[in-house]
Amino acid sequence: MEITLSLPDWVQPELDKLPTHFATVEERMAQVIHFSRLNFMYKTGGPFAAGIFERDSGKLITMGVNRVVPSSCSSAHAEIMALSVAQKKLGTFDLGGEGQPAHQIVINGQPCAMCFGAIPWSGVRSVVTAAHGYEVEALTGFDEGPVHPNWIHELEKRDIEVITDVLRKEACNALAAFGRSGQIVYNGRLG
Amino acid sequence: MEITLSLPDWVQPELDKLPTHFATVEERMAQVIHFSRLNFMYKTGGPFAAGIFERDSGKLITMGVNRVVPSSCSSAHAEIMALSVAQKKLGTFDLGGEGQPAHQIVINGQPCAMCFGAIPWSGVRSVVTAAHGYEVEALTGFDEGPVHPNWIHELEKRDIEVITDVLRKEACNALAAFGRSGQIVYNGRLG
Repeated sequence: MEITLSLPDWVQPELDKLPTHFATVEERMAQVIHFSRLNFMYKTGGPFAAGIFERDSGKLITMGVNRVVPSSCSSAHAEIMALSVAQKKLGTFDLGGEGQPAHQIVINGQPCAMCFGAIPWSGVRSVVTAAHGYEVEALTGFDEGPVHPNWIHELEKRDIEVITDVLRKEACNALAAFGRSGQIVYNGRLG
Repeated sequence: MEITLSLPDWVQPELDKLPTHFATVEERMAQVIHFSRLNFMYKTGGPFAAGIFERDSGKLITMGVNRVVPSSCSSAHAEIMALSVAQKKLGTFDLGGEGQPAHQIVINGQPCAMCFGAIPWSGVRSVVTAAHGYEVEALTGFDEGPVHPNWIHELEKRDIEVITDVLRKEACNALAAFGRSGQIVYNGRLG
């Protein structure tokens, strides 16, 4: 009666190569896009990655990547993996709780319907995205699901900052490379 | 770089007491409400449970309960737990994939914004709910989050059946009992 979700074996060695802090959202996103590329190059999941950072200091807490197919778990999206590993590392289900610095999630594409809904529960105070939802869908064949029509406003209403279009072109180039790779696209049958 | 989410120790013995099949949605929901009560009585999580059944035969695949606080994981809602354990048991990320019978998720309350978004990815073909979102919020203090304004229609558009109001009063009674218990309500600070 338990489930275990793991990041791929290559993640820790890749993290060990990185500096501890990333000053700008562009530097943070560049690493996230790099991880999104590694995940499909190594065939360890879909072309999606998310990083959790301290918003103000730029300290990297962890990266997460999509693990749906290898984990046999439809919820193992990059954002859920990153948030869950960060919460485990910090020992709290609420990254915005008392005594925590403001945390930021940096994602290579617009969050899908599920991951959008996961953001308010996670306690992150800032969301940074690159590719738009329609670009993710057109370039990869993955479905974004029934995303809330006012998703940015809904997060902002809850005092969660949303910064879009950061390295959007670079993220789209990576998604397009996945699209050309002919790898598995799951749950596209009703998309 | 991994996370493990577990159902409480009392779940397996409780499942062992049950019949293998439940003919009607009311019988299925009655068990789900029972599990939602057990979860807060045993102080093993919030007052939420979800069951995964074969829609037509009524075979019970598994129950899940809310594990956010004990797991330090904001995504460990009852629906995510139930879907993930069922997917592990059946060895697939897609409960609606080839060779699978139609699966149904039965939930004691309207799914929150995240769990709504998780449903299309899970492959279930049917959703059964009891308490409405505003009732969950009023009776427990938990927040449903930014749920899609047309959530039922969005699921139906994807060929997912939605049956609401099954044992709604009984589910509300259980939620009200939780509300009177004075137990922790997390992430209510912006709700």
